[in-house]
Amino acid sequence: MSFALPQGFLFSTSTAGIKASGRPDLALALAPDGASAAAMFTRNQVVAAPVTVGREHLRRSRGNVHALIVNSGNANCATGKQGIRAANAVCSAAAKALGKRPGQVFPSSTGIIGVPLPLEKIIAAVPDLIGSAHDGPEAFDAFASAIMTTDTRKKIAAEEFAFKKQTVRLAGAAKGAGMIHPNMATMLVYLFTDVVATPGELQQCLKSAVNQSFNNISIDGDTSTNDTALLLASGKSGVQLKSARKQFENALAGVCRSLAHQIIADGEGVQHVVTLKFEQARSTAEARQIARAIANSALVKTAWAGSDPNWGRMLAAIGYSGVKINPDRINIYLGDQQICRNGAASAFDKARAHDYMKQPAYEIRFTLGAGKARLDFLSCDLTAEYVRINADYST
Amino acid sequence: MSFALPQGFLFSTSTAGIKASGRPDLALALAPDGASAAAMFTRNQVVAAPVTVGREHLRRSRGNVHALIVNSGNANCATGKQGIRAANAVCSAAAKALGKRPGQVFPSSTGIIGVPLPLEKIIAAVPDLIGSAHDGPEAFDAFASAIMTTDTRKKIAAEEFAFKKQTVRLAGAAKGAGMIHPNMATMLVYLFTDVVATPGELQQCLKSAVNQSFNNISIDGDTSTNDTALLLASGKSGVQLKSARKQFENALAGVCRSLAHQIIADGEGVQHVVTLKFEQARSTAEARQIARAIANSALVKTAWAGSDPNWGRMLAAIGYSGVKINPDRINIYLGDQQICRNGAASAFDKARAHDYMKQPAYEIRFTLGAGKARLDFLSCDLTAEYVRINADYST
Repeated sequence: MSFALPQGFLFSTSTAGIKASGRPDLALALAPDGASAAAMFTRNQVVAAPVTVGREHLRRSRGNVHALIVNSGNANCATGKQGIRAANAVCSAAAKALGKRPGQVFPSSTGIIGVPLPLEKIIAAVPDLIGSAHDGPEAFDAFASAIMTTDTRKKIAAEEFAFKKQTVRLAGAAKGAGMIHPNMATMLVYLFTDVVATPGELQQCLKSAVNQSFNNISIDGDTSTNDTALLLASGKSGVQLKSARKQFENALAGVCRSLAHQIIADGEGVQHVVTLKFEQARSTAEARQIARAIANSALVKTAWAGSDPNWGRMLAAIGYSGVKINPDRINIYLGDQQICRNGAASAFDKARAHDYMKQPAYEIRFTLGAGKARLDFLSCDLTAEYVRINADYST
Repeated sequence: MSFALPQGFLFSTSTAGIKASGRPDLALALAPDGASAAAMFTRNQVVAAPVTVGREHLRRSRGNVHALIVNSGNANCATGKQGIRAANAVCSAAAKALGKRPGQVFPSSTGIIGVPLPLEKIIAAVPDLIGSAHDGPEAFDAFASAIMTTDTRKKIAAEEFAFKKQTVRLAGAAKGAGMIHPNMATMLVYLFTDVVATPGELQQCLKSAVNQSFNNISIDGDTSTNDTALLLASGKSGVQLKSARKQFENALAGVCRSLAHQIIADGEGVQHVVTLKFEQARSTAEARQIARAIANSALVKTAWAGSDPNWGRMLAAIGYSGVKINPDRINIYLGDQQICRNGAASAFDKARAHDYMKQPAYEIRFTLGAGKARLDFLSCDLTAEYVRINADYST
């Protein structure tokens, strides 16, 4: 992937021995002159220590971040007070090496729950991690690789736009795979830009972009304890966000949508990426609720795995979604074929529908006959491979 | 299985050619002198035609049923007005042969959604079905077999109790397998007794028994469109329900619990039946909400499939259940080993925990530190076999 990174950020990675695989498991993003920051976190009541500490640090620094330090292989979740101390210790070590305050370091962790963070390994790696930080796409690529867990490929997206004679750049890296459910963020997402912005401005833009992307995807319906989306703005482009608001919002949403799509496509064991397109919903919120019922139904998702045009299971999921519906007004389409008409069977070519569903990515369209709202929601099938991956994770 | 059936009922089955397998697919239960009836139905807004017609017939007959006719292999759901006409036509044909009104016949269907009911095949089989009805355990066994779809074994339970010099008997047959979720009934359950009772008395007892059994189980979290629990009382024992209320309620709950357990144990691809035992919940309803979050988590269920004591996934599911919890007060036990203490890791023997979870049935106990309510909830693992079964159903 070839693109210019936003100015004002350096990246580095290290192999601290947290992952049993021996792959890189520490990643650093450095803003040597500081960056404005905004973040969104999981809504799970059980939150990992780095989420607690990250929230606190953004509050303490008033949204000013100099470094982001991520470890993969260990979620530092359900680790009690010791876990909080460990997350704080990592930030303090980095802050000391940088000559900054701990509150200006943002921590993240992903991996197994309930195992103490191997703190010494991480702290021992910090000086070299900071010393080796550099710019350029290779460094960013390495950063994106080091945050992976069961991901099979790194997830990167970038956009830029011209404003007067200047260029504003955005780049994002994410990790996902399993446990992706749309209730913010249910994954780790790091977004970098060189626009000039206050933390408050960034927060508004981030919330809107997340609603158009990560909140409209689902792999397995679980909501993780560590989900974080962090947006950092170095200001190095010299372009004020408030001057180019619409362009910035579009670019940010574009990066987020691309990352969301990559996360789904790389979901554990995923063989089919399914875009659910809703029309005639009463509201976007209702469409999302229906989408989640469909996307979280094991019966629906296994039918997708078998390329089975079983519209009855989708209709049943709509029926128990909790949204008031009139089954008689619901139509379902697979590509150009209607497979359900007014809540009942519609004659269609089953072989052609089966072939359509054999594609690695395709759309299912629903008209609900209730209103005018629309929503696109990304999901995927549930395969025997998903079971294999997740039945054999911690042991 | 050897037990005496309640008096006043006859049973028969037929092979009408609805199932491609050529197995019996029609089942009849006859109450020659009538029976008081109570029923509970799915809460899905998309309901099958027999549910609509069954409700209407109970209303029209004021809870007086002479015959129950069940077909397997076709759910007669999402079949539009034609489906309603078909369900009515089946009842009319049976009523005519019996010299009764159509409202005194209760219809049920289970199987694939969205395919027109093969009405002619069923109607052609009705006279012989009625003519061959007889009593005795073999007939009841055959009835329980004919209502099966992907079930691998029939599900039967019975209880009896003495009252003064008389005996009251209860017997139940159920079908389940996939799509079992606790929001009433999510399966077909037929309960027969010879107690003397009004439909209103039966309805109260049924509701209570369902709450203690079928509402506390989950296989895959889907709520079916056809779920029905029907309770018929012939009155032939001569014992008034109101005289022996407590004994009757206990016996009915016992039958329902046994059937619920059999349904879970025969869930599609199930290798482990897991009883979730909750203590110190704020209320039974909250415990049930937490139980469902755990029991419907693909990540938790795949961990169970791998006999993986991954308590972090269970804790995470509790965290997103929607019930207000304090993670620091939550403890989780596998048999006599504590695997999570105050929301954090607790040292335990992993090999022993793994062995414990290799058992075909075992318990996981949770103390929530929020109140005094308790709940036992039955669930099961999510296996690659489940995916195989459901990825290849309609095509």
